[in-house]
This record gives sequence, structure tokens and C-alpha cells, in this order.
Amino acid sequence: MIRIKSHIKVIVFDVYGTLYNVHSVVKKCDELYPGKGKELSELWRRKQLEYSFLRQLMGTYEPFHKITKDALMFSCKALDLPFNEEKTHLLLDAYLHLTLFEEAEQVLSVLKDKQLAVFSNGSLDMLEPLIKESPLKRMDITMISVDEGKVFKPTSMAYQLVLKKLHVSREEVLFVSSNTWDIAGAKNFGFNTAWINREEKVFDHLDVSPDDEYSNLLCLLDEISDPF
Amino acid sequence: MIRIKSHIKVIVFDVYGTLYNVHSVVKKCDELYPGKGKELSELWRRKQLEYSFLRQLMGTYEPFHKITKDALMFSCKALDLPFNEEKTHLLLDAYLHLTLFEEAEQVLSVLKDKQLAVFSNGSLDMLEPLIKESPLKRMDITMISVDEGKVFKPTSMAYQLVLKKLHVSREEVLFVSSNTWDIAGAKNFGFNTAWINREEKVFDHLDVSPDDEYSNLLCLLDEISDPF
Repeated sequence: MIRIKSHIKVIVFDVYGTLYNVHSVVKKCDELYPGKGKELSELWRRKQLEYSFLRQLMGTYEPFHKITKDALMFSCKALDLPFNEEKTHLLLDAYLHLTLFEEAEQVLSVLKDKQLAVFSNGSLDMLEPLIKESPLKRMDITMISVDEGKVFKPTSMAYQLVLKKLHVSREEVLFVSSNTWDIAGAKNFGFNTAWINREEKVFDHLDVSPDDEYSNLLCLLDEISDPF
Repeated sequence: MIRIKSHIKVIVFDVYGTLYNVHSVVKKCDELYPGKGKELSELWRRKQLEYSFLRQLMGTYEPFHKITKDALMFSCKALDLPFNEEKTHLLLDAYLHLTLFEEAEQVLSVLKDKQLAVFSNGSLDMLEPLIKESPLKRMDITMISVDEGKVFKPTSMAYQLVLKKLHVSREEVLFVSSNTWDIAGAKNFGFNTAWINREEKVFDHLDVSPDDEYSNLLCLLDEISDPF
């Protein structure tokens, strides 16, 4: 079990799915395509991730805002949902206003004695509006985007950006994510890891396991009072 | 449009989903888990691909037979399907006896004036039993596995193995695959590409398109008599 108080200097949070609910776009999806919101939101997210992986593998990096748009276009076509510039704009705008998970603000407030950062595959033009228009705007959080190195998670080169930006060693980082591929990459790189498993999912079989698993961010606070 | 007769020296086929139907395991899946065959087969295949991508990104290569087993284990757990050593063995064995697409033998027979090869993420211990126990066993086909370079498609390093093994330049290769990510990687590398789109799918939005798209392998033969 990780003891936050001791050797951890910085707590780094993934953004999409960890602090903000990517599926909060369902509402807008359903408004534009009644009855299809969930299906569209799920395919959109799946393709968004897949495209970031494939572009990294092919060596054809593009910022996440482009990948997010490409994934949306694909998903609409694949599900036979007619789209135009206005609908696309509305859906991409919804991605800049995702819902913050309800416990996130409280948890980050309590943890503020540590250095706090977010580290995301998202580009800054997506992360800034998202964070600056949410309750987290009042907090001192360093924003790190893979776009600074033009290399996506879960490559080790990506996680290296955190060390470079925050001047810490990997053992001093607690990395928090709800994405299994992200936890696998971070653990493989050498970070301490906490997997936020909100939906009782099974962890991926990649020969690497999270140091800790919690059902939501609140559980991180239990670690603070750990006497050891 | 590609003219097979002219500058193409070698025709390289992807294996899983292109020559052999990965979803022919549905029967065995359904036998072991009645009513769950399709769902298990789909998740298994999706995770198999995802794990190959993620391991390549993380730099933790393992041969495809291990990845295939890991993906199966995950899928059974995620779908709450009880498994044991016997069931696992039966399902993995089904993967060594996938059904050859019905037109494949005829097409490869007609194309045999060209050098023919298969190039797969599969390891040789999966490809050999599969091909040697199917009608393709009688044909002169060079087997190339990414395992020789320990690097998965769709990285350019992987496709490079084809050039090294067959002593051809990338312009002399016609690469045939039903997997969009594979066509994207091959085209990005510089191969001529033919996408076999059996199910009228939408091509992925990755800023790269196949040179040609066919509804099955038979259509490749139309190219042979192309007078231009």
C-alpha cells in the first residue's frame, strides 16, 4: 500500500475518465441523436483511444483535439448518424465541458499539501478550457500535456515528460488514473500507481498491476492518515 | 487502381481476418458458453489487438500466442465466464484451426505467378499449424511473423521485415488486409494496399486511405486482366 505522506512528492492525475467523466457527453449526444447517445459516446471514446495508440505506433502524431474530432467523425459514420459542421461543433464543445467527478474537488483540496499535477493525452487547448471552467480552476495544479513532447501515453517517453516538468524522480510520483492502459504504462515506467476502478472492472492482463486499487478518488484520502 | 501485372513483385496477405476468419471460434465459444459465443469472440479479438498495440507502446513485447491467451483470460473474467485449464486449451486450440475464407484458396492459386507471402502479428507457432492444416498447405507461401523482429504491426519497423525477408522494395509489394489499422500502417510505410472490406465497414480516420477497396479476395483477380 502506498503511503502518501512519506516518499511521495507529487500526485499526478490523469484527466479523461479519472477527474472528468468522458461519458458526460452522452447528454449532448442523445440530444442530437435521440436514443443513440450511449452508443455514440462509447464508440467515440474507444476510437479516440485507439487512434492515439495507432498514431503513436505509426509515428504520425497529431494533437488530441484532432484525434478527438476524427474519432467523432468515424463514429457518426459507422453508426450511420448524419452530421454537419454545427453538430460536430456542439459535440466537440461538450468535450470541453465534461463533468468533474463529484468527489474530485474535495479530494484535491485535502491533498494540496503535496504538489498536484494533471498529465493527459489531451492537448492544452482541450485541457485549459476544461479545467479553467470547472471547480478545479481555483486550485494550484500543474497542467502537463503529452503534446509538449508529441508522444502519447502509455509510452515511457510520455511519462518521462512528468519528471522533466516537475523535477522529481519516478519513485516520488503517485500516478492516479482510471484507465487500465494508463496505469499499466505508468507502472511499467516506474511510477507508484493508484487505479480508480469506479465500475468494478477487471484489470487488463499485461503482466503489470496497480500498486493500489480504489473505487473512487475519496479512498485516496484514507492513505493520508496512514500511520506507517 | 493497382495493376497487379506490372510493378508488383510480391503479394503479401495479412492472416487473421484476411485469409482466415477469426470469428470462426464463435462455435467453440458457444459450445463452452452457450449464448455467449459471439460476445466472447468479439471481446477476445478486440483485446488481442489492443494488447499487441499496448505492449508495443510500452516496450514490453511478448509473442502473439501469449497475448492471445492473456486476452482470452481477460475476456472470460470480464464477461464473468468461468474458465479452467481445459476450456482455455480448447479455445486456444480453436484459434489454430480458424476457417479459411472460402475464396482464399482459389484466389491464391490464380495469383501464384507472383511471389506470395503472409505477414502476421501471429507467432510462427500459431501460423504454422493454422496454414499447414488448411487447404493453403499445398501452396508456395512465405510465412513472415513479426516475431522475427519482435515488433508489432502497425509500426514501420514491422513492415520493414517484409522487405528484409523478400528482398524487394516497398513499391513492389501489394499488401492485402481486412484490418483497417493494418492497411493504415502498411500504406503509411509505403506499400501498395488493398483493403478487403467484407462487412461494408467505414475506414478509420487516420489521414491515410487504402489504394483499393474490395468486398472480398476474389475481386483481386479482376486486377490481373486489367489491360492498362
